[in-house]
Amino acid sequence: MVLVSPRNPLNMGAVARAMANFGFKRLSVVAPFAPVWREARSAVGAPDLLTNALESASLAEAVAHCTLVVGTGTLTYRKPEQLVVALPHLAPLLREELDRGGHIALVFGSEKHGLTREDLSYCHLLVEIPTDPEQPSMNLGQAAAVCLYELAARLPEAEAGPLSRSQPAATSEALELLAGLVEETMNAAGYSPPAMQPANDHDLRLLLRRLNLSAHDTRRILGVFRRILWRLKRARATGKQSG
Amino acid sequence: MVLVSPRNPLNMGAVARAMANFGFKRLSVVAPFAPVWREARSAVGAPDLLTNALESASLAEAVAHCTLVVGTGTLTYRKPEQLVVALPHLAPLLREELDRGGHIALVFGSEKHGLTREDLSYCHLLVEIPTDPEQPSMNLGQAAAVCLYELAARLPEAEAGPLSRSQPAATSEALELLAGLVEETMNAAGYSPPAMQPANDHDLRLLLRRLNLSAHDTRRILGVFRRILWRLKRARATGKQSG
Repeated sequence: MVLVSPRNPLNMGAVARAMANFGFKRLSVVAPFAPVWREARSAVGAPDLLTNALESASLAEAVAHCTLVVGTGTLTYRKPEQLVVALPHLAPLLREELDRGGHIALVFGSEKHGLTREDLSYCHLLVEIPTDPEQPSMNLGQAAAVCLYELAARLPEAEAGPLSRSQPAATSEALELLAGLVEETMNAAGYSPPAMQPANDHDLRLLLRRLNLSAHDTRRILGVFRRILWRLKRARATGKQSG
Repeated sequence: MVLVSPRNPLNMGAVARAMANFGFKRLSVVAPFAPVWREARSAVGAPDLLTNALESASLAEAVAHCTLVVGTGTLTYRKPEQLVVALPHLAPLLREELDRGGHIALVFGSEKHGLTREDLSYCHLLVEIPTDPEQPSMNLGQAAAVCLYELAARLPEAEAGPLSRSQPAATSEALELLAGLVEETMNAAGYSPPAMQPANDHDLRLLLRRLNLSAHDTRRILGVFRRILWRLKRARATGKQSG
């Protein structure tokens, strides 16, 4: 489980407690608000989970080893670009990923804003807790408890669901490597003006996650783009020499 | 939903918020710690649910109109006398009760001790959230969120389950009336010494809930005991006269 930029030590404690209640062990914290984070993890009686939590500077780093990144949050005011799954239907999808040997991250945003648009671009799918439209926004500790309860109760007996991959999926890290290479290739080919680059990066990350690439396919595509990039660079060098 | 003797205003707020998130409207509070309760319900921005919550002096009063009273809590250190249902299997039982026109109460105990033995004697069944044996005890606000999520997500589509009643069930109030009458009858018949009475009352309450009496049967049994009691009293009066 990954917490992005949490600010409230009570919430961090509540999340850690819910994880312990439902038997989840690995907590990663991304860019926590430093003084609060120190306070929360060094508090007397802080759960081991909090003391042993991994700290990362970025979400990309925290989920590098994961093959399925699931974002959470209220989607009432957003138009998500990924598949959105209601929490009661999530277990079969995760079951399939686990059966294939994949690693899953469940990502929660900060109490105030939830996951940012950039955070969401690292997610393969989004999960939504079905809440009352009049009061959709949940407290972080309660949302975590509800998600972890559902997975603890239903993952063990879930039947593998409708995701279509049958080979081990690419890790987030491999997808980021590929995204970087494709981007470099696009630049080398003069695909778009520099001002467009951040928007292109974002769309590219989402596209690569929608493709459900296997680890094997990702390696193959990396090879293709390395070759293309090499050619583009050589052509430019040759062009310069001959020009 | 019924909260018995809550002491922490943050928890009361968290419970009210979870109820609003999942579309539950009626909150009853039994014997709250008065200063804290005043503070929680009059806080700026307190949810309507808290401001409008019903207050009762006893659990019996709070669930008087209910036909199915479901107790919650960690049962690790108790040996419950009722049917215990794991939360993921609760919805079908409640569905059946609702389809029959029954009223259900979900009862949470105080943060510190959970439901007392006496509280539990008013419950028809107990629900258990499946938690890790190493950290079984949940925070009240999180436990409420998990229970309400499960019911909101699964009650609408649940198929009526394995409870066997097909007629409207007796309300808690009717069962209490019957218990009182049976007790009076036992006394009139000299069934047991006065010192045994509290233990007998407790067992009697549980027995009456195990029987799954319909409203109709309860009225019939009340009639039978009223007649018996009248006879016993008359016999005693006659005995005294003749003695």
